[in-house]
Amino acid sequence: MKDWDRLITVEEMEAATASLLENGSKVGADSWQQRVKNQTPHCGFGESGTCCRICSMGPCRITKKAPRGICGCDVHGIVARNFLKFTAGGSATHSDHGREIMHTLHETREGGNYTVKDPEKLIRIAKEWGVETEGKDIYDLAHEMAEVGLMEYGKPFGTQKFLKRAPQHTQDLWAAAGLEPRAIDREVSQSLHMTHMGCSSMPEALIHQALRAGLSDGWGGSMMGTEFSDVLFGTPKPLDTTANIGVMEQDMVNIIVHGHDPSLSEMIVYYANDPEMIALAKSVGAKGINIAGVCCTANEVAMRHGIPMAGNFLSQENVVLTGACEAIVVDVQCIFPALGPLSKCFHTKFITTSPIARIPDSEFIQFSAETAGENAKAIVRAAVENFKNRRPELVNIPQQKTKARVGYSVEAIIKVLDGVANTQVDTMGTTKPLLECVTSGVLRGAVAMVGCNNPKVRPDYAHIELMKKLLENDIILIVSGCSAQAAAKAGLMDPEMAKEYCGAGLKRVCELAGIPPVLHMGSCVDISRMLILASELSKDSGLPISALPVVGCAPEWMSEKAVSIGNYVVATGLDTFLGVDPYVKGSSEVCDWLTGENGVKKWVEASYVVETDIEKLGDLMIERIEAKRAALGI
Amino acid sequence: MKDWDRLITVEEMEAATASLLENGSKVGADSWQQRVKNQTPHCGFGESGTCCRICSMGPCRITKKAPRGICGCDVHGIVARNFLKFTAGGSATHSDHGREIMHTLHETREGGNYTVKDPEKLIRIAKEWGVETEGKDIYDLAHEMAEVGLMEYGKPFGTQKFLKRAPQHTQDLWAAAGLEPRAIDREVSQSLHMTHMGCSSMPEALIHQALRAGLSDGWGGSMMGTEFSDVLFGTPKPLDTTANIGVMEQDMVNIIVHGHDPSLSEMIVYYANDPEMIALAKSVGAKGINIAGVCCTANEVAMRHGIPMAGNFLSQENVVLTGACEAIVVDVQCIFPALGPLSKCFHTKFITTSPIARIPDSEFIQFSAETAGENAKAIVRAAVENFKNRRPELVNIPQQKTKARVGYSVEAIIKVLDGVANTQVDTMGTTKPLLECVTSGVLRGAVAMVGCNNPKVRPDYAHIELMKKLLENDIILIVSGCSAQAAAKAGLMDPEMAKEYCGAGLKRVCELAGIPPVLHMGSCVDISRMLILASELSKDSGLPISALPVVGCAPEWMSEKAVSIGNYVVATGLDTFLGVDPYVKGSSEVCDWLTGENGVKKWVEASYVVETDIEKLGDLMIERIEAKRAALGI
Repeated sequence: MKDWDRLITVEEMEAATASLLENGSKVGADSWQQRVKNQTPHCGFGESGTCCRICSMGPCRITKKAPRGICGCDVHGIVARNFLKFTAGGSATHSDHGREIMHTLHETREGGNYTVKDPEKLIRIAKEWGVETEGKDIYDLAHEMAEVGLMEYGKPFGTQKFLKRAPQHTQDLWAAAGLEPRAIDREVSQSLHMTHMGCSSMPEALIHQALRAGLSDGWGGSMMGTEFSDVLFGTPKPLDTTANIGVMEQDMVNIIVHGHDPSLSEMIVYYANDPEMIALAKSVGAKGINIAGVCCTANEVAMRHGIPMAGNFLSQENVVLTGACEAIVVDVQCIFPALGPLSKCFHTKFITTSPIARIPDSEFIQFSAETAGENAKAIVRAAVENFKNRRPELVNIPQQKTKARVGYSVEAIIKVLDGVANTQVDTMGTTKPLLECVTSGVLRGAVAMVGCNNPKVRPDYAHIELMKKLLENDIILIVSGCSAQAAAKAGLMDPEMAKEYCGAGLKRVCELAGIPPVLHMGSCVDISRMLILASELSKDSGLPISALPVVGCAPEWMSEKAVSIGNYVVATGLDTFLGVDPYVKGSSEVCDWLTGENGVKKWVEASYVVETDIEKLGDLMIERIEAKRAALGI
Repeated sequence: MKDWDRLITVEEMEAATASLLENGSKVGADSWQQRVKNQTPHCGFGESGTCCRICSMGPCRITKKAPRGICGCDVHGIVARNFLKFTAGGSATHSDHGREIMHTLHETREGGNYTVKDPEKLIRIAKEWGVETEGKDIYDLAHEMAEVGLMEYGKPFGTQKFLKRAPQHTQDLWAAAGLEPRAIDREVSQSLHMTHMGCSSMPEALIHQALRAGLSDGWGGSMMGTEFSDVLFGTPKPLDTTANIGVMEQDMVNIIVHGHDPSLSEMIVYYANDPEMIALAKSVGAKGINIAGVCCTANEVAMRHGIPMAGNFLSQENVVLTGACEAIVVDVQCIFPALGPLSKCFHTKFITTSPIARIPDSEFIQFSAETAGENAKAIVRAAVENFKNRRPELVNIPQQKTKARVGYSVEAIIKVLDGVANTQVDTMGTTKPLLECVTSGVLRGAVAMVGCNNPKVRPDYAHIELMKKLLENDIILIVSGCSAQAAAKAGLMDPEMAKEYCGAGLKRVCELAGIPPVLHMGSCVDISRMLILASELSKDSGLPISALPVVGCAPEWMSEKAVSIGNYVVATGLDTFLGVDPYVKGSSEVCDWLTGENGVKKWVEASYVVETDIEKLGDLMIERIEAKRAALGI
């Protein structure tokens, strides 16, 4: 395999994909590239958010000739309702990840399928929540905390516990604007109630609820998902792994884990290392078992076990197209239904595991916390036994593979910063060394880059090119989700290589701290880590979050979850830059509410910027960061 | 006013509407009739459910050339996801009504704005739920029950308490199919999770969840809404009122209450009878204050106070068009945003009261249980003071008014049946007298007719003509929602008049029992009364619900709520006949799941029938009832 001594370019990755598509064409495989062509052009009403299907009198579409729907709703109401419904879908989905984790926590026991790997963190959160810890068995505490956490989804009174983690100023803004989220599921249900036929049609009210529903995800379900995943599976620490399609191994049984919830993937990883399974693999002629990840599951297992990352959202068909994928094992979210028919073109077993994500043309092995061990073993066994069905003439693994250092939880970042602090002068355990770099101008600021791939943007190109541009400008990146994998695939998480693409200041910081300039903070739910980091920076600096030279960016976002995320990032005080319009361009009022000076910014001191020209999007971020610096006089 | 000695025909009602529209045209008013023209034809993709907007890669539309969306989802997955999303919107909305009632119950106190009017019912439900009642202050019990009820929305473990009310056979079916709903909001969130990009695309799984989410509404939130509304405001008993647009009074201050939640309307009714307010009305030249209802709010206050019913869903603009509406006061659901601009064409105050339903061009007076009295008084005062702004030249109240006997709660029906039972031989307090009528063939069966108006069907025509046809065939009707109002507007709830439209058997039953042949069971949430009635019939007969010659029908349904309702009615074992397609005709698989022999019927012994030809729909219902009779050998 080629040893990459420079970034892999998007062109090279596209060439690799082309060779895979050629592989697919031999067996009549469909592809998203083809389906995009079939689906183009998209419906203009849908794209601008001006089509309404919330009752069966319609659908109604707003035009000059028909300025209102049958109920009398105008274009602003329709667009805003669609935006809130979209958010609610994301908030429900993203927070449900946390609920699964809490149910898994409820199933932990000494020596069981799931155990408490970070008891210290569990105790820390219990204290934060006011749950008695003294003299309590750690598993009793885990179960009690699981029950308290699950009540965050449904409690009839009160607001989210984790809101107290935010800086006081942020909490005050939320209180003043009435944005404090109550029970997570209640915010989802209220969102659907408000968008029901004959309820709200006022953009202000609908967007207000969209922020609140988003906050219930970010500071509620997602944050629980992250925090208690750490409790269950360990809090990530920096470790080295590899990325890109070349992580698949020609001579090994390749099992791809894809989806989101570490409860599944942790078990698969465990059983792939089981001597019995490895022996079985050898008995069928393989050199062993190779697990690689796609999408957020990849982030989860890379962060905790150094499992290689085969690709991100729009690479999911590629792993099958290699002809060397014995099984693609999925749980929930962002899984192409296309994997059903595609896997049938190859020998690949497409194994679904969750009642939440039932997909035709898959093999369903229901996975549950109670029976996780046997489920995982059955899955690994099925994959190994499938090795013999591989068709060698169809095997084509493009030789692209990078090194990546991953695992930058907030705890890990603080530890890195402690390492560069002066133990004689500085307080340990703060973000102050980072703030000093920013104040001095060695770093100009930071961008939290997140989100999916989207064929409306040249896939991965936006992530990678924006990152390169920002790095050159001494802006450090914290990344998660498919953005993180784009970076890793290109090589931007290889500390040695990536520093060469940085401005002088950032390069120095990276060398000093021994970090890559693009810090992998985890999966999409781990954007909650970014909220905590921003809060710590705010507390340590005494500045409101909105005053920090930090912005959020999702250049290739695609899912409802991404809009829920956008809403909570904005509502936390971070300006957020999108490369794809969230189906709102049909309403000037909704656009003003989301992006203007007198919209959500009045409530939370931050707003959206939507710019589909990626080059401009980068310029706008740099401008915004410099403007924030100027406002601070630094 | 003309004394109607026969049914008012749909043609006559349409002529009255035409005269109102002429009134509107003098002041440039828009109308739904015009907007329907503007919005026709509707988008074929939307109408058939084959358009997908759940991620921002799209929208995608399924055609022969493009048989799959960009993610690879096929038409069946897209249609089924849309169906589940639609259901979730309805389930969240409809059940949220019950949540409001539980919060109101939580605010009750001796001498407060809200009190417990039916303590006996509260105690009965408390015993059912296993809540200790002995020696407990009724308000302490109310608050405890409110908290227990609110937990039905969010409890992390267990299923809905009211499921135990169903016949054992029904409970067994639910258990076998895994349909028992957990916390209400959780079913909503799970529905959105399953329909998120890259989750479920298998119709079976999506429709399964649609039934479960529906059940969480019908046997959860809606049933709590009904039962605790009775506790708060009294369990309805038969009483006489009037209906149709002619209930508005030329010389009085007309306040229209519109929406759903009785917490608001009860207070408005109370303060409209306040001597201070009546004196104020007289001081401004009115003879008094006339409250009339529209939509489900009308049902609520008619059932409990005999407040006249001005109209149903598609009459809501008519009340303003009379030029004699001082205020239209609304809470949530089914409120036309059109009322904003329309009210501005007249002197009418359009008063919104709920944060759930914020509508442009309205006056917002936030209503809450804590301040209900003062809110209601302020609203009534504003209406009265607005009387002077009426423009006499625009006043046009069509002289159509019928008599209606309403208020048939299950308790009231049982009492009626007790009245015709033989106290020497029969057990009191059962549905057996009704079952005997059915067994003997005096009655052929019953239809539960419910739901909205929809311009896709000639409004009210389907309700009224179907009812007439069924009555002729000795089929008794139990009705709710806008269907109930259609019946009342025509005169089908006038016991004297309506019996003349019945077959001989049904006529005899009505005379003997002193009831109209169309029994008003309440608002849309009160469809839960029908579930209880069907359960009682099943228990008293020893037959499964599905074996009873009883079906459900929503010929003009329109809202997401209606689909949630349809799902729980079907899932309770009652075949349900729809006059409007629920945006599923684009998928043969989804249609088969909903209407076929091997679909949901396998789980719950009932299914949907969709027939847009209303005449045929009636024939199909009669056929189905006769087939059920034949199967029973009666």
